[in-house]
Amino acid sequence: MRELISRYRQLKVAANRDLGHHSIATTIAELALHARGLLASIDHGALASRVAGKQYFNYRGEHQSRPVNQDLFELDDGTFRHQTDRFISGMTSESPDTIVRIAYTLAYSVFVTNDVFGIGRKASATYFEILSGHMVARHFGISPRRKVRIPESGTDLPTDYVFDPGERSRKVHLPVKTSTRERAVQAWVHQLVLDRIFGTGMYRGVLVVASETKRNTRTDEVVEICVPRQLQMFQARVAEISRVYYLDPPAPYLALAETFPRVEVRSFGLAFSELDDLLRR
Amino acid sequence: MRELISRYRQLKVAANRDLGHHSIATTIAELALHARGLLASIDHGALASRVAGKQYFNYRGEHQSRPVNQDLFELDDGTFRHQTDRFISGMTSESPDTIVRIAYTLAYSVFVTNDVFGIGRKASATYFEILSGHMVARHFGISPRRKVRIPESGTDLPTDYVFDPGERSRKVHLPVKTSTRERAVQAWVHQLVLDRIFGTGMYRGVLVVASETKRNTRTDEVVEICVPRQLQMFQARVAEISRVYYLDPPAPYLALAETFPRVEVRSFGLAFSELDDLLRR
Repeated sequence: MRELISRYRQLKVAANRDLGHHSIATTIAELALHARGLLASIDHGALASRVAGKQYFNYRGEHQSRPVNQDLFELDDGTFRHQTDRFISGMTSESPDTIVRIAYTLAYSVFVTNDVFGIGRKASATYFEILSGHMVARHFGISPRRKVRIPESGTDLPTDYVFDPGERSRKVHLPVKTSTRERAVQAWVHQLVLDRIFGTGMYRGVLVVASETKRNTRTDEVVEICVPRQLQMFQARVAEISRVYYLDPPAPYLALAETFPRVEVRSFGLAFSELDDLLRR
Repeated sequence: MRELISRYRQLKVAANRDLGHHSIATTIAELALHARGLLASIDHGALASRVAGKQYFNYRGEHQSRPVNQDLFELDDGTFRHQTDRFISGMTSESPDTIVRIAYTLAYSVFVTNDVFGIGRKASATYFEILSGHMVARHFGISPRRKVRIPESGTDLPTDYVFDPGERSRKVHLPVKTSTRERAVQAWVHQLVLDRIFGTGMYRGVLVVASETKRNTRTDEVVEICVPRQLQMFQARVAEISRVYYLDPPAPYLALAETFPRVEVRSFGLAFSELDDLLRR
């Protein structure tokens, strides 16, 4: 476990230096493989699911892990090793389903290890930020920054990841969260602040979220906490987030892409066929 | 303790009916006196303070309570009983210092009892909302609502307390929090949403907060968690909150009233000499 924590630190340092560098993928893959090694001795079992059409299980060590989606998580270690190879080589020709499955397994292998060994949610949040930030950085071929310079003020505004392909291009604002709960509003507020500083349309907001499921500790059931009306209100009245990508998209949020005010919620696997177009439109 | 919880329920029901009714003051006072009775057998002791110029103590039962400001909290039960009498009679001629001292003691007598007996932060949050909402409602002579009707849509938007003195008057939007931490942004976003629905200036935003102190569980010291630059950014780029009133105002926030972008942070005791003017300007 001490090694896992020291691997986190190394990943964080390397990610701060150059998030899009291909070696980051190797460091992520090795960290995830190491976490899977720690998981090997831990029992897992199915959970009753209150989420229509989806089955979940979790790991039960000293602590119980968060729920894991049975259809998205690769349990077989041999197959997972192949997945990490594809992840390291860049996944440029993989299907959306394959991409999301690999990203989900890389993410949850580490999340549940953190949960079971009581490492804390902050480590999972940082790791997920690096994992998804790296995938987007690799796609664009540029590393993001974590601040923007405010014109006429000479000061910097700390932000989530921002990708800037150059002066004559739109930019991407990429908040990343393991789940949103009452924190979804932060993504919309940061988007509004960027809109107000740089003008609406300069930054495209792309929110990446792992899932909205949790285990109800009283009933041991998996529940999904969604506030679709709130997201619609943010989208209509605060700012426009162009895409919300989920590893495990909640059905009530996917439905927001079909209604008004529209929030374009999709599977994260689709991001890589849409991102370039988002910068153009 | 079961009685305390049943008193909460009664207060909540009565507050939903008519928050400004004078009988609410009696129900609050009786609840606080009951909580003080439960506290009588609980030890308290000083805490090391990292907050310049302020001393804190806390209660230590099954759980440890949050820190209590020594200069604002009335420890003597006889004096507290007199305070509750003044609270019930409306405090129309009390000084700002007296008002904040009475409000602080009413609030923290209940907060620490909840902490010590493990009743949970939600109960404290609801109680504080009712306590400060009642004081403002009594001052205006009108009870607030918790939703606004969205024009041209026929639907209601759930809000914090909103006070509407009538069609030809500005209105007050009153978010209430025991502490803000990363949740301060919510007050600014709700203000922005009201501005965008009804036009800027229709609703005056007045945020009421108890304090930003907490006990560092590792070192046992009292620390104050403040993000002044963030509040300035919200004020400059998201929406304008007209006043932020604290029971125990953090010095770094009070300083925001003297700088640019300005955030008017004050002691809650001053609210009652300013609120009418806020509606007019």
